[in-house]
Amino acid sequence: MAKINENYLKLKAGYLFPEIGRRVKEFVQANPGKEIIRMGIGDVTQPLTPAIIKAFHEGVDEMAAVATFKGYGPEQGYEFLRDAISANDYLARGVQISADEIFVSDGSKCDTGNIQEVFGSDNKIAICDPVYPVYADTTVMSGKTGNCQPNGYFDGIIYMPCNEANGFLPELPAERPDLIFLCFPNNPTGTVASREVLEKWVNYATKNKCIILYDAAYEAFITDPSIPHSIYEIKGAKKVAIEFRSFSKTAGFTGTRCAFTVIPEELMAYDEAGNPHSVKSLWMRRHTTKFNGVSYPVQKAAAAIYSDEGAKEVKEVVNYYLENARIMLKSMQEQGYTVFGGVNAPYVWVKTKAGFTSWEFFDHLLREANVVGTPGSGFGPSGEGYFRFSAFAERANVMKAMERLKLLNF
Amino acid sequence: MAKINENYLKLKAGYLFPEIGRRVKEFVQANPGKEIIRMGIGDVTQPLTPAIIKAFHEGVDEMAAVATFKGYGPEQGYEFLRDAISANDYLARGVQISADEIFVSDGSKCDTGNIQEVFGSDNKIAICDPVYPVYADTTVMSGKTGNCQPNGYFDGIIYMPCNEANGFLPELPAERPDLIFLCFPNNPTGTVASREVLEKWVNYATKNKCIILYDAAYEAFITDPSIPHSIYEIKGAKKVAIEFRSFSKTAGFTGTRCAFTVIPEELMAYDEAGNPHSVKSLWMRRHTTKFNGVSYPVQKAAAAIYSDEGAKEVKEVVNYYLENARIMLKSMQEQGYTVFGGVNAPYVWVKTKAGFTSWEFFDHLLREANVVGTPGSGFGPSGEGYFRFSAFAERANVMKAMERLKLLNF
Repeated sequence: MAKINENYLKLKAGYLFPEIGRRVKEFVQANPGKEIIRMGIGDVTQPLTPAIIKAFHEGVDEMAAVATFKGYGPEQGYEFLRDAISANDYLARGVQISADEIFVSDGSKCDTGNIQEVFGSDNKIAICDPVYPVYADTTVMSGKTGNCQPNGYFDGIIYMPCNEANGFLPELPAERPDLIFLCFPNNPTGTVASREVLEKWVNYATKNKCIILYDAAYEAFITDPSIPHSIYEIKGAKKVAIEFRSFSKTAGFTGTRCAFTVIPEELMAYDEAGNPHSVKSLWMRRHTTKFNGVSYPVQKAAAAIYSDEGAKEVKEVVNYYLENARIMLKSMQEQGYTVFGGVNAPYVWVKTKAGFTSWEFFDHLLREANVVGTPGSGFGPSGEGYFRFSAFAERANVMKAMERLKLLNF
Repeated sequence: MAKINENYLKLKAGYLFPEIGRRVKEFVQANPGKEIIRMGIGDVTQPLTPAIIKAFHEGVDEMAAVATFKGYGPEQGYEFLRDAISANDYLARGVQISADEIFVSDGSKCDTGNIQEVFGSDNKIAICDPVYPVYADTTVMSGKTGNCQPNGYFDGIIYMPCNEANGFLPELPAERPDLIFLCFPNNPTGTVASREVLEKWVNYATKNKCIILYDAAYEAFITDPSIPHSIYEIKGAKKVAIEFRSFSKTAGFTGTRCAFTVIPEELMAYDEAGNPHSVKSLWMRRHTTKFNGVSYPVQKAAAAIYSDEGAKEVKEVVNYYLENARIMLKSMQEQGYTVFGGVNAPYVWVKTKAGFTSWEFFDHLLREANVVGTPGSGFGPSGEGYFRFSAFAERANVMKAMERLKLLNF
């Protein structure tokens, strides 16, 4: 008799974003003709830039002739892309990460979920609260937790609350975890980590033989030169951290799909007997056995981000979104909201008004202003009473949304 | 302390294809200038067809303008592609599979590996021997087996030997499995399953509440009208089977990456208490949590396969490869080899000569004829003494390889 993976039964009903989609769809069906402004899912709106489009077309053309056709590529990604990543994202910042330590994939969502497979189910995971739901959900799926408690916490996960009191920066956990998910610039709060903050974590991980799973999907939005873009800018981090990067938000690849994961040569995890094993080798085995590489034309398109033209264009798009964030931040502050993030990050994290819960605020905004955001409680219990606005919108819609917010009654 | 998934330590050294790559690379470095003919990995050589290229370009162009830009798509795949699959691959053959039951992905390798996640580690898996190595490797990774024995078999897997005596068709296993991997047309043996054979398996699975994981990656190569293309052509199969399909071999997508998995609404697996759960719902949860959909332009390209032009073009390419198989089959028979497959399938399965082991034959062919094939033993112990030739080559190379084989001494 075929038996299910019972860990799936522990998961809570809907993954956050499908639930948002469901409520919006219901509202739209009941209210045809209403113009909805979507700032919920954190999906980009600006098209791929000309240099990227050009390379994408060239990649497609190569697939049209025997001489240039590409079949199975290297599972780890083409060298031309990994070389460009190594040179531009790391060596140029003084960080020694070689092309061999880079694994190109079809998305950071996949990577942050799949990485758990190379670690045993007896590992304890620490995650921030609030946090991108994928970390917790995939931890549950992989059998590393108990059941979900009424407060929304899963038994067996070490939660690190992030709130106004600690500046939305997690404190070192009292109980020692084995794997620690960190995300900076943070989704959903827009908080960034200074060099000192990252040093604290790298030291802690080194002392306790933990591995930090560092999600840097939003590093392109850092403008303050004192803020590290990569955890490997911290001494010793290559021994304790895996870094996840994505072209989704950096270059508008949410629908094009390309990302990468860095696993340094010296990163070790341990077997029962305490012997060290290379995590890179384990991931290589997983990657070659359960994955077949990213579409060749997509990798060509991704590599164009590192050309002079491409880099300039992509920076302009990032600045466009950052200006959206600045406009939102300013407007909501003027409207009397308590607001966080929105600088060095594409997310604005807002305290709801009038004691509304996050979902009450969501429904109120949807109904009264036809604006869609993301309920903070969807990211974890400590997100209750907060709301996330995404800056990945069109400028005109950002302005319009802010005007509509001004008319709300609480 | 971060602990590894110790199941990875049970895996045998190299995944088959990287090992082939290593030996070829070594030979080429030692023998510069030798022209190697590659019929090993089973990778296609013919370019994407004009209708596919046209749609691919159109998809890229849509990504270049705000009005047509696509961000996150539905994780399950765009409706236009799932509708085309449902209509052409199923409804047109009298099989009721709706677009809702289809999950578009980036490859069957990923799908056949990842599907195991929704099933508990207490399931017993049956696989054929020889077989595509991914089934066994991912079963091991997911903790459903014991250690590998000296004979190459993993404890806890039910092996179904396929050999000359049973016509390379697995017999019903003595011990009852929970999940059964079947692949027809078969990789590596090129064997096809008649309606009667499939009925036998569907009846067995129904009686024993097993689930058949049916890999139909090579269905496009079936020319005999009496052979089913889909397991759902068999009555009752929707209650007991998941079907994996791929555009890799059908339309040359090995480097473009697109495939799909069918999970019928009525397919159930069970919890400890014996309650049924929809496998489709479990997979939907996995797919939405750990995957973010296939690149939009790639899905556009894939949909073009179902246009009148695209279908015609793709059929021509398939026929080209089938003619290669026919040529190889005929030539090797004339050369006194015992040969199987090669009809309704792109693989020719050859008995080695002179009592050579599969790897001895591999090395002999590489050294003396500079032809690369795949050692049968790489697919499992029962593949020892056999060798797989892929028909996915250029015609001129197929002819040349056959000429070179004639000159071999044994």
